[in-house]
Amino acid sequence: MTELETYFPHSRKVYITGSRPDIRVPFREIELAHTLNEDGTQKEFNAPVRVYDTSGPQTDGPLPALRADWIAERENLTQLEHARAGTITPEMEFIAIREKTEPEIVRDEIAAGRAVIPANRCHPECEPMIIGRKFRTKINANIGNSALGSSIEKELEKMRWSVIWGADTVMDLSTGEQIHETREAILRHCPTPIGTVPIYQALQKVGGEIGDLTWESYRETLIEQAEQGVDYFTIHAGVLQKHIPLANQRLTGIVSRGGSIMAQWMKTHNCESFLYTHFEEICEIMREYDITFSLGDGLRPGCLADANDDAQFGELKTLGELTQIAWKHGCQVMIEGPGHVPMHKIKENMDRQLEDCFEAPFYTLGPLVTDLAAGYDHMNSAIGGALIGWYGCSMLCYVTPKEHLGLPNRDDVREGVVAHKIAAHAADLAKGIPGAQDRDNAISKARFDFRWEDQFNLCFDPERARRFREESLPPGEQHNVKQRYCSMCGEKFCSMRISHDIRK
Amino acid sequence: MTELETYFPHSRKVYITGSRPDIRVPFREIELAHTLNEDGTQKEFNAPVRVYDTSGPQTDGPLPALRADWIAERENLTQLEHARAGTITPEMEFIAIREKTEPEIVRDEIAAGRAVIPANRCHPECEPMIIGRKFRTKINANIGNSALGSSIEKELEKMRWSVIWGADTVMDLSTGEQIHETREAILRHCPTPIGTVPIYQALQKVGGEIGDLTWESYRETLIEQAEQGVDYFTIHAGVLQKHIPLANQRLTGIVSRGGSIMAQWMKTHNCESFLYTHFEEICEIMREYDITFSLGDGLRPGCLADANDDAQFGELKTLGELTQIAWKHGCQVMIEGPGHVPMHKIKENMDRQLEDCFEAPFYTLGPLVTDLAAGYDHMNSAIGGALIGWYGCSMLCYVTPKEHLGLPNRDDVREGVVAHKIAAHAADLAKGIPGAQDRDNAISKARFDFRWEDQFNLCFDPERARRFREESLPPGEQHNVKQRYCSMCGEKFCSMRISHDIRK
Repeated sequence: MTELETYFPHSRKVYITGSRPDIRVPFREIELAHTLNEDGTQKEFNAPVRVYDTSGPQTDGPLPALRADWIAERENLTQLEHARAGTITPEMEFIAIREKTEPEIVRDEIAAGRAVIPANRCHPECEPMIIGRKFRTKINANIGNSALGSSIEKELEKMRWSVIWGADTVMDLSTGEQIHETREAILRHCPTPIGTVPIYQALQKVGGEIGDLTWESYRETLIEQAEQGVDYFTIHAGVLQKHIPLANQRLTGIVSRGGSIMAQWMKTHNCESFLYTHFEEICEIMREYDITFSLGDGLRPGCLADANDDAQFGELKTLGELTQIAWKHGCQVMIEGPGHVPMHKIKENMDRQLEDCFEAPFYTLGPLVTDLAAGYDHMNSAIGGALIGWYGCSMLCYVTPKEHLGLPNRDDVREGVVAHKIAAHAADLAKGIPGAQDRDNAISKARFDFRWEDQFNLCFDPERARRFREESLPPGEQHNVKQRYCSMCGEKFCSMRISHDIRK
Repeated sequence: MTELETYFPHSRKVYITGSRPDIRVPFREIELAHTLNEDGTQKEFNAPVRVYDTSGPQTDGPLPALRADWIAERENLTQLEHARAGTITPEMEFIAIREKTEPEIVRDEIAAGRAVIPANRCHPECEPMIIGRKFRTKINANIGNSALGSSIEKELEKMRWSVIWGADTVMDLSTGEQIHETREAILRHCPTPIGTVPIYQALQKVGGEIGDLTWESYRETLIEQAEQGVDYFTIHAGVLQKHIPLANQRLTGIVSRGGSIMAQWMKTHNCESFLYTHFEEICEIMREYDITFSLGDGLRPGCLADANDDAQFGELKTLGELTQIAWKHGCQVMIEGPGHVPMHKIKENMDRQLEDCFEAPFYTLGPLVTDLAAGYDHMNSAIGGALIGWYGCSMLCYVTPKEHLGLPNRDDVREGVVAHKIAAHAADLAKGIPGAQDRDNAISKARFDFRWEDQFNLCFDPERARRFREESLPPGEQHNVKQRYCSMCGEKFCSMRISHDIRK
């Protein structure tokens, strides 16, 4: 039994085939029971519910190279260049089926730079997906080791766990040992796009000495990772010398690892960031592989007091300039965003990002809406994430309960992914993504019908929902899913049971 | 050691005395370490942070009757009547100190009906608190047994646990055995106001047979609970015969227990709800004890599909009429609200409540922003709660991870309370409650100073934050709080360490 079957019973993978037989788009189909009459006869058939599925082929070995032919067949243009030329690539068609929309809408959003398809030519295993605000809000799960712990096996497990619970992309943020090997293992086994922050490995190569970083060694790292198949690179090219004094005024300074590394480098060498001065060369490399830029927010606020300050918005302006340069080179671009931001300042972040970065998709960490939630920061981030998703953010980077405290483990990954699935879905409902409410309606009908199994299977985490209900029932009753009530109210006080009586 | 000392180390209770020695307002003061220079000498003194405290005297026995003299000394008027007459009661002064505002502001909000002080004359143990949108957003924790489980001891434990984690009021929703005795135990030991839904006990008295409910038996239950000291009653007097057909159109019908009971009763007897027809008599009882109305939303939506429908808004109009009748009798009133509501429909709920109910405080369950989050509904509710709190809701009813699945246990209570503390605090920050950000700023400074102990102690759940950090460090390092980094990045990649280096 695959992990998917274990955690999502009564679900099966189905594939919709596109205009050519090798475009096979995965969905997870949740099978439902009939609605019954009181005498147990069938009252109504409930159609299975098809949901977006990120879990991949669920094989133990390396994944098949599903995009190999598509890549081989076409000219070496990026998705952006194809879109501008009016071509609908197989990736775009795949995505249109996946998002239940028209290929022409996908092409148009890509051409306009309002959406990206992170899919490196050297990562043919990746199932195409799109990040843009006209589409389902996506979530990213960060994994990766640190100098203080983990192993390739553990990171692979976290990656598999992330996509089972619904991560749309995975970032490998390893900063410890065996960075290359860890990434290789992840790339060959992961069905989603993979992002990295190349400066981490570049720094590791020079023994952690920031002053020893050079453009040449960074460039070499970029190419090494590009060849492996990384789909998007976080590049903190927007942190400039002029911004450093602004960040020095702050309560918590620079809290982005990449941002702080580049600030320290500029300080040491007293010159502009090599990421900025060599940006056009970076674009050339990115274009070659069709790697998507994720322009890093090196000056994202690390606390409420620093939110929406001159450092943050100063960098955002620079990211806008860089976006236009990258687009000129035919590269796809998204923009990373805050950080810690109180709710009433989130909209300004979103609006300024759209304006300053010409509607390139926004990809945010959180935002966290208070600084006080250590141990519960996944919830904190889900609040801010739901809000900014509604306002127009395209992808939420998950935050786990370990944020601010340590490296997440497998359980934290599950908590973090599900919290942000809730936030992203709440955003989709509020944005009015067509069909977003279908699954909610199906679960609510199941609830009113007392179809407990269907209720479990339709929700984001069937295993937990089932376990929680069973835990709270008296022994002997625990596996009885025929009961028309739960332990919260018992039978006499069950409002749904009474509602049925009223309708009779 | 008290539970408070166990879970909140370096915190101590302090009291601020008002204009008379028996007005002693509790705060929890969190002691902080100095900011140090690199050589370990003191760089800066960090003042202790005083936070609102709901935990009560933390004694094992029954609580002292702190309001006994205030009640005995004054005329038998409600807080609303005193406020209208221009009197600042000791409760109002207590609250002004607690909320760090002026007594005149408290009086004015009460007089206008925009805030309530739930404090039954027969509950002298209760520490006065206020529910109104100009003040800190409050949270309520539901406890109580059901026919399927729990005991007085377990419910007392959940009550104590609720106030330690920060519940501002507690509702005893018992529907099982020993309802009277459970409530008595809770009332004599709880430092916060207690709310109930009297129809539950009234129904239990007639053996659960809805048709057998009578005004007389309900009235007797009201007086029994009033005499015990219940501070606010949820009364579903707004569900009328005309609303029932509207609810019959719904996907999930009526999901409020009280609402469904009254609908069934009206159907059975084919006449208007006795809660509505006898509403003025109910007001007379409530006035006598100064019990606050919590006008129940018997037709709150149980799923997104039913949100903001005619049934819900029809009832809201009736609740507005009842508010004016209650005010005429000198009674305090708050209004209960949804339910399941997608984010983009939350503001309409809040705005219509303020308009239809003449700015009486809103007290909402959630709202839950998706139907798919069973097992994680506390997070789901925290998203909606933060939003509606920002828009003007005065109190959030917590939801636990067991929502839709079963009766919460002690762990669920902690999760539910902390999730809603985060939501309520996020709302206060966004609303701009004066001083709301002070604690965030203190924790962020501690974070930047690597004062780990202070970081733990300043957050909502110090015990969990400490445990999570320790769990993720290598053995031998786990209790080392002197480290200037955590396992997430390790030392070389610590952005805050680098930020300090840059400033040097």
